[in-house]
Amino acid sequence: MLDLVKGGGLSVDDAVSQMRDLPFQDLGFAKVDHHRSLRQGFPEVVLGEGKTPEQVAKIAQALLEHGDRLLVTRATEEAFAAVHRAVDDASYDGTARAITVDRRERSERLPGVLVACAGTADLPVACEAACTAELMDCEVERAFDVGVAGIHRLLDQMSALRRANVIVVVAGMEGALPSVVGGLVDVPVIAVPTSIGYGASFNGLAALLAMLNSCAPGVAVVNIDNGFGAGYMAAVINRAASGKPE
Amino acid sequence: MLDLVKGGGLSVDDAVSQMRDLPFQDLGFAKVDHHRSLRQGFPEVVLGEGKTPEQVAKIAQALLEHGDRLLVTRATEEAFAAVHRAVDDASYDGTARAITVDRRERSERLPGVLVACAGTADLPVACEAACTAELMDCEVERAFDVGVAGIHRLLDQMSALRRANVIVVVAGMEGALPSVVGGLVDVPVIAVPTSIGYGASFNGLAALLAMLNSCAPGVAVVNIDNGFGAGYMAAVINRAASGKPE
Amino acid sequence: MLDLVKGGGLSVDDAVSQMRDLPFQDLGFAKVDHHRSLRQGFPEVVLGEGKTPEQVAKIAQALLEHGDRLLVTRATEEAFAAVHRAVDDASYDGTARAITVDRRERSERLPGVLVACAGTADLPVACEAACTAELMDCEVERAFDVGVAGIHRLLDQMSALRRANVIVVVAGMEGALPSVVGGLVDVPVIAVPTSIGYGASFNGLAALLAMLNSCAPGVAVVNIDNGFGAGYMAAVINRAASGKPE
Amino acid sequence: MLDLVKGGGLSVDDAVSQMRDLPFQDLGFAKVDHHRSLRQGFPEVVLGEGKTPEQVAKIAQALLEHGDRLLVTRATEEAFAAVHRAVDDASYDGTARAITVDRRERSERLPGVLVACAGTADLPVACEAACTAELMDCEVERAFDVGVAGIHRLLDQMSALRRANVIVVVAGMEGALPSVVGGLVDVPVIAVPTSIGYGASFNGLAALLAMLNSCAPGVAVVNIDNGFGAGYMAAVINRAASGKPE
Amino acid sequence: MLDLVKGGGLSVDDAVSQMRDLPFQDLGFAKVDHHRSLRQGFPEVVLGEGKTPEQVAKIAQALLEHGDRLLVTRATEEAFAAVHRAVDDASYDGTARAITVDRRERSERLPGVLVACAGTADLPVACEAACTAELMDCEVERAFDVGVAGIHRLLDQMSALRRANVIVVVAGMEGALPSVVGGLVDVPVIAVPTSIGYGASFNGLAALLAMLNSCAPGVAVVNIDNGFGAGYMAAVINRAASGKPE
Amino acid sequence: MLDLVKGGGLSVDDAVSQMRDLPFQDLGFAKVDHHRSLRQGFPEVVLGEGKTPEQVAKIAQALLEHGDRLLVTRATEEAFAAVHRAVDDASYDGTARAITVDRRERSERLPGVLVACAGTADLPVACEAACTAELMDCEVERAFDVGVAGIHRLLDQMSALRRANVIVVVAGMEGALPSVVGGLVDVPVIAVPTSIGYGASFNGLAALLAMLNSCAPGVAVVNIDNGFGAGYMAAVINRAASGKPE
Amino acid sequence: MLDLVKGGGLSVDDAVSQMRDLPFQDLGFAKVDHHRSLRQGFPEVVLGEGKTPEQVAKIAQALLEHGDRLLVTRATEEAFAAVHRAVDDASYDGTARAITVDRRERSERLPGVLVACAGTADLPVACEAACTAELMDCEVERAFDVGVAGIHRLLDQMSALRRANVIVVVAGMEGALPSVVGGLVDVPVIAVPTSIGYGASFNGLAALLAMLNSCAPGVAVVNIDNGFGAGYMAAVINRAASGKPE
Amino acid sequence: MLDLVKGGGLSVDDAVSQMRDLPFQDLGFAKVDHHRSLRQGFPEVVLGEGKTPEQVAKIAQALLEHGDRLLVTRATEEAFAAVHRAVDDASYDGTARAITVDRRERSERLPGVLVACAGTADLPVACEAACTAELMDCEVERAFDVGVAGIHRLLDQMSALRRANVIVVVAGMEGALPSVVGGLVDVPVIAVPTSIGYGASFNGLAALLAMLNSCAPGVAVVNIDNGFGAGYMAAVINRAASGKPE
Repeated sequence: MLDLVKGGGLSVDDAVSQMRDLPFQDLGFAKVDHHRSLRQGFPEVVLGEGKTPEQVAKIAQALLEHGDRLLVTRATEEAFAAVHRAVDDASYDGTARAITVDRRERSERLPGVLVACAGTADLPVACEAACTAELMDCEVERAFDVGVAGIHRLLDQMSALRRANVIVVVAGMEGALPSVVGGLVDVPVIAVPTSIGYGASFNGLAALLAMLNSCAPGVAVVNIDNGFGAGYMAAVINRAASGKPE
Repeated sequence: MLDLVKGGGLSVDDAVSQMRDLPFQDLGFAKVDHHRSLRQGFPEVVLGEGKTPEQVAKIAQALLEHGDRLLVTRATEEAFAAVHRAVDDASYDGTARAITVDRRERSERLPGVLVACAGTADLPVACEAACTAELMDCEVERAFDVGVAGIHRLLDQMSALRRANVIVVVAGMEGALPSVVGGLVDVPVIAVPTSIGYGASFNGLAALLAMLNSCAPGVAVVNIDNGFGAGYMAAVINRAASGKPE
Repeated sequence: MLDLVKGGGLSVDDAVSQMRDLPFQDLGFAKVDHHRSLRQGFPEVVLGEGKTPEQVAKIAQALLEHGDRLLVTRATEEAFAAVHRAVDDASYDGTARAITVDRRERSERLPGVLVACAGTADLPVACEAACTAELMDCEVERAFDVGVAGIHRLLDQMSALRRANVIVVVAGMEGALPSVVGGLVDVPVIAVPTSIGYGASFNGLAALLAMLNSCAPGVAVVNIDNGFGAGYMAAVINRAASGKPE
Repeated sequence: MLDLVKGGGLSVDDAVSQMRDLPFQDLGFAKVDHHRSLRQGFPEVVLGEGKTPEQVAKIAQALLEHGDRLLVTRATEEAFAAVHRAVDDASYDGTARAITVDRRERSERLPGVLVACAGTADLPVACEAACTAELMDCEVERAFDVGVAGIHRLLDQMSALRRANVIVVVAGMEGALPSVVGGLVDVPVIAVPTSIGYGASFNGLAALLAMLNSCAPGVAVVNIDNGFGAGYMAAVINRAASGKPE
Repeated sequence: MLDLVKGGGLSVDDAVSQMRDLPFQDLGFAKVDHHRSLRQGFPEVVLGEGKTPEQVAKIAQALLEHGDRLLVTRATEEAFAAVHRAVDDASYDGTARAITVDRRERSERLPGVLVACAGTADLPVACEAACTAELMDCEVERAFDVGVAGIHRLLDQMSALRRANVIVVVAGMEGALPSVVGGLVDVPVIAVPTSIGYGASFNGLAALLAMLNSCAPGVAVVNIDNGFGAGYMAAVINRAASGKPE
Repeated sequence: MLDLVKGGGLSVDDAVSQMRDLPFQDLGFAKVDHHRSLRQGFPEVVLGEGKTPEQVAKIAQALLEHGDRLLVTRATEEAFAAVHRAVDDASYDGTARAITVDRRERSERLPGVLVACAGTADLPVACEAACTAELMDCEVERAFDVGVAGIHRLLDQMSALRRANVIVVVAGMEGALPSVVGGLVDVPVIAVPTSIGYGASFNGLAALLAMLNSCAPGVAVVNIDNGFGAGYMAAVINRAASGKPE
Repeated sequence: MLDLVKGGGLSVDDAVSQMRDLPFQDLGFAKVDHHRSLRQGFPEVVLGEGKTPEQVAKIAQALLEHGDRLLVTRATEEAFAAVHRAVDDASYDGTARAITVDRRERSERLPGVLVACAGTADLPVACEAACTAELMDCEVERAFDVGVAGIHRLLDQMSALRRANVIVVVAGMEGALPSVVGGLVDVPVIAVPTSIGYGASFNGLAALLAMLNSCAPGVAVVNIDNGFGAGYMAAVINRAASGKPE
Repeated sequence: MLDLVKGGGLSVDDAVSQMRDLPFQDLGFAKVDHHRSLRQGFPEVVLGEGKTPEQVAKIAQALLEHGDRLLVTRATEEAFAAVHRAVDDASYDGTARAITVDRRERSERLPGVLVACAGTADLPVACEAACTAELMDCEVERAFDVGVAGIHRLLDQMSALRRANVIVVVAGMEGALPSVVGGLVDVPVIAVPTSIGYGASFNGLAALLAMLNSCAPGVAVVNIDNGFGAGYMAAVINRAASGKPE
């Protein structure tokens, strides 16, 4: 049916009517959006921060009743413990602070996503991006600690840069890496500023502003520390570039 | 040769060696990068702002000696006059403030890019985005003045939203449109904040922050008023999604 | 007498004279304003934050000596414990972080206030708003977790939106919900930004700016996380709209 | 029919269906929302800033083809000249920078709105608020130049303050007036910060922050210099308080 | 000799020569300025914050070897404990977070300083100001919890306001109190913004900006939470106004 | 009578009653406060900025009908022309941008005010301060262009520094001068940041923050470029220190 | 004598005494520091901005009466005209906006300063830096338009980078160039952010923050657009590195 | 070979080729740059903040396998414990929070670096600077607690100021010290703002802005609290000034 819409074979009125019927489940404190998997190719993602472990666990359960994948980001170990009590097959990536479940038969992963980061302290955000893209069926290459102060470390990754369909570039401090990468490739670069740094980094503001002002074209930016958003964006682009929309 | 690199058939050393030989032309006040077209699929773009009309005209001429396309953004009418004296076939889009030249035999344009904007005052930025993507061989649909305060105007565009491979969403003031669009589609959304608004819009800061904090996944952001950057990003993604990398 | 003033039957001089005699009680560290109930239709509200539990308890006692209602906002459990020792019938809403006492015979509540929030993490602020309006004799409908990224969840609440005399809309992150709601209704919308989010949300600044720049008319804004202020404002408006000023 | 919805006599589905059919008119650069008058009790308002005089005139004409009132805010004299050429009965308030048309038979105005401002330089914003509320059928009292540094000027207005159903308070510089007014009355106060001031007023930021942090309850804030928004909000509240929803 | 300088009876050269010989004591990590008492009428004051308890204690001891008064501000209880071990007669004001020693025979205190604050939560800063002025031989009146939302509480203090030679006004949140006080009196007002508030108070920024933009003349501002600075300034002015320079 | 109040011989009630009767004159767009001269020892001062020349002239006339002094600050030459047409004896100080009238028999001026500034570009603000204090009957010494980068220029002014009862220190850029001056004297220092500078001076923010954080006690700050406020404060203090309250 | 001080052969007291006698010339509105040439190896530099052409000309004349070099930065053409009328041999560099005079017999210039800039629009600032260093007897190499988006343009300058004793790096937008240069060399890098850019560049704030957070060591930063400061710093370092202190 | 390059005896192509071969070691989470010692005269420095103790220890070990010096900045005691377990001869400076190893035969240290700081609370940053410069073979003089509020303490250090080749000036609060020092000397001043202060110091922003706007030439600035960066810069300059490049 979605193909019909894309081809223009479904009228506007019918599209709106369709929207009327989108399913969601009301938990009282949350309305779980079971339709999102259909609408956006991925189930609703749970932002762990700002929710109690119990709330996270209940939302996780509700989502898995109708779906086969789960992603909770910025999750504490306490949140994972609560989820794990309710969901046996949940696993936790401590560096990425992500809880994941994948109950599908392992489908083949599409190559094409590269996640690069400038420094060791950017790892949690870079791993959240990689973890997200992998759960969305991308094969992810990693090029970590390739900041611009030792540019030969980046140039050493030229082949990987050129192999990618889309590149996630994670950097804190002065946030210069996306501009340099963006000048070397002809594929989309998703820049992720991190809150790494001190003083006039103002918790990632410096890197954010630098990335928004990149003189290289083909660079777009997500929120500070938003590895999930970058990984999601990269996966959506990679799917398209691989000719395999979900 | 680039295909070889992508396939891994070219060693790192050779890639670096290659970079040594990238051609550019030194005008004294500017080094024109003739290689960019090869490296990134599009010739160097000239930011008109901050350059004298004479500088713009000289860079334009230099670029057209080795290339067949030209894009000058944020160009004043004075800059266009100077360019036009030197380049007969230059044309000027007053709304988009863009000078363009395209000397290629008209190739067919790839459908798939939608440019939406929230209000009439966002038109210059939206047109810059559309104009850029068109010069990069995309067919661009437009959905203008579809801000969230009259959401039925946006819902009326559901078919267009679903037809697109990538959507550029331009909005000033509270910058809410990308979040609503992002929740309705499963393709990448490139959000462009504009400086439209007054008071606490702080010249686009309000819209920029809103877009960076979008609760919808699949949204990435470019600089305030950066229609060019969004159009470029959209064209690159659309090329990939159409299975036709340049 | 107040009616006389409203009707213009009281001279300016007399009004000023009246003010001279307004009663308050000096606790040394605080001057409890016993007159506010008469002047503003609700007793003085205590901001729990920045006061010691003992100070809160003493102010609470003083207020209840002359009044029959109490509201302490942003109260810790320690503050509640101190109040409870002194005031038997105090109760505590942990989500809203509010201490309340209501010793009046239960009067009937006026329908007409709707409190909506965008996400689960906005619950504490939304509950503070609801709790305040209820203590001010409003019947409060709730529409929680109806953020703009899944707009069908909001459209599902169309009847509730249209039933309301006034709507409190609570949202963090990009703060887009008030603009969408404001475009759908013809009643006042009180927007409350929350500090929910991370990175470029800058502790609620992004949502605050978005709401101040709302392109929908009929939207006014209170401080970040100020559920109390929104609930108070909503109750005052609802009283007026119900033709029942206190 | 709207009454039916309010009473709950219209189902959600039907409400959404209804929205499908909302009329608007596409001018190419703008989609004029003819339905807003029905949906929100007032026709679409045109923000003059950021539009060419020609765009303003065309939108004005389109709106008046289906409606009988027009409001253009932040309009230059040039914009008015263009509108006037097309719309004979348009009038211009130079202090408020507002273009208005009202073709209805003069209905009686509802008393209850007071617009107060702190200083002479705040007049344009205060007049925009008053002008808006008047076009929405409110009788508006004015109390100008009653800033807190000479508090007897405000106390002199006590009767007017007490007569009002809703008060718009306009102030620049330190923005203290809404807090003082809010402490004296039991009706909603809509606070409007202005960009009046210099140095650390940061174009109205100081007044905006002060008003958001008002220690008086019953105060909500609109954007810096947004007289229109405050007047609109006041009129909507006044209508409700007068028991006469449009 | 100072009198000679004031009268012009001392040449510039001699003044500079004098400066050459100013005594201080080098503790290695600090140079204690024993001359300040002579130069400025009060010994060096120790900012407790950012120093270890041991450093505070050592500096305190060194100062008391040459002087007879001590003031340590923003001192923790740990710092006091360390000082107390070394200095028997040190006392600690927990609300003001101040350590004081005064070994002089009690001289008579000069009346004329009033310290007012807006709310209970401003007490620590107000007490720091009062404590400082008292140590500098001023008799200090207090008017606490007289914020503008209940203006009759302030008007009740009119006599005190008029008795003062100088008034310290402490307020957080919207910081409106100094403007109202400044409009009622003809003596200098020293305004102290506090970090009390939440959300858009931005840790006192709102109050600071409001006070800097006060429309009442005769108001000057010190740093956020800087009760010491205000108390010091008030004491210096009071001394002058009492015709008794130290 | 004022003396009675100061002595406590007037009750609170009577003080409030008195306030009821304060005279002001309503010009429609302004309420001229004729009582301020009595209440604060100086007539109302007119901020020229943000008012039309005609408004300035009308307010000036109204003030001079009941008073014998006039001060208009931040006045353009156009405003002066308008005032001069109505007020023959008005004079204009172009550097200070101040319009003044003084119709009193020349009383003797009290020495004791020193106005210092860091650089030549700070002259307009320094002159506004001096001009204000002179109109308030102070004799003003000037020490201009004594910035900290050539500290011998400041040390050369040591006698003047020591002669003063109060010192106004005007500085832009890094705003360091008040700290150095504050460390050399035992009298109040009123610091005025100016908007002189570029780049990271952010229109005076750098100087403002520096002055608020002064490590020297006895320094208080007024708004950026607020020479009037500083001159007013200095005059009030000087009057007190000279034992001659107005 | 200075050599004596450096060697410790001059006592502290004598040094202070010396300072007493530093010559300067009082023009009324400015105190010209004739001693600075001796103290700092370069005469006082005049910031043209914020001074009238006449003030600039007078200061220029005064400086040249005692010195043989002149530098006026940020000078308009009007300022130059005024200077030129008084000083025949003054010359003006329109790109750098600098007025210079050098009346010394041409001494040989010390090689070792490289000025690099990222884009054509950064030229004015880069030229101001170069012009300053040249007037301070440095031979300056230039590497313009070598921004990081085309990194081969920078790598092409490797020899020049390695030849330098000190490098000035000028960049706007994201300000990434100093980090890349800093990672390639072992000499001091003076980074100059420029106000080039738009939107979230916030007039150079983005570049400034990026440079302050540079992950490459050996980078220090001057004010936005402060080409003079960078050129001065570079010349001082180059002199030292060339073993030829002035 | 480096000498050849400096002399221009090495072609661009060869320089780039050389870069291809720069050695680094991939630890998975970090790429240790063993070449930096050769390229920049000092091994890679480890920023302790944001890394786990284990990561710090592993990087430390890797660096020491190829080098003979180690510097870890902003290191916790936990990080030191982990390093010490792996590296016997590591030592920890608690004030500077720095872990160091130096396995070279003690070479002679070059005099010429002075580190000054304004207050006792600035010691950690000043010590980090001194510690860095010492590890880079500089002899470091210290002048601590010489803030501008007691300027005689600074003047007492005149000999030390004049002996230095380069001066590091560390200050928090108003950050005025570098301007005063910069006006007294003719050598480069590296200014380090610290986060010492409260309220409107905004964690060092006030000092940072002040230093960037210094009116004294020859001052460049590093990040807030970046003692390492300042010490590194000073050592590089001192090496050059001593005619002894590494």
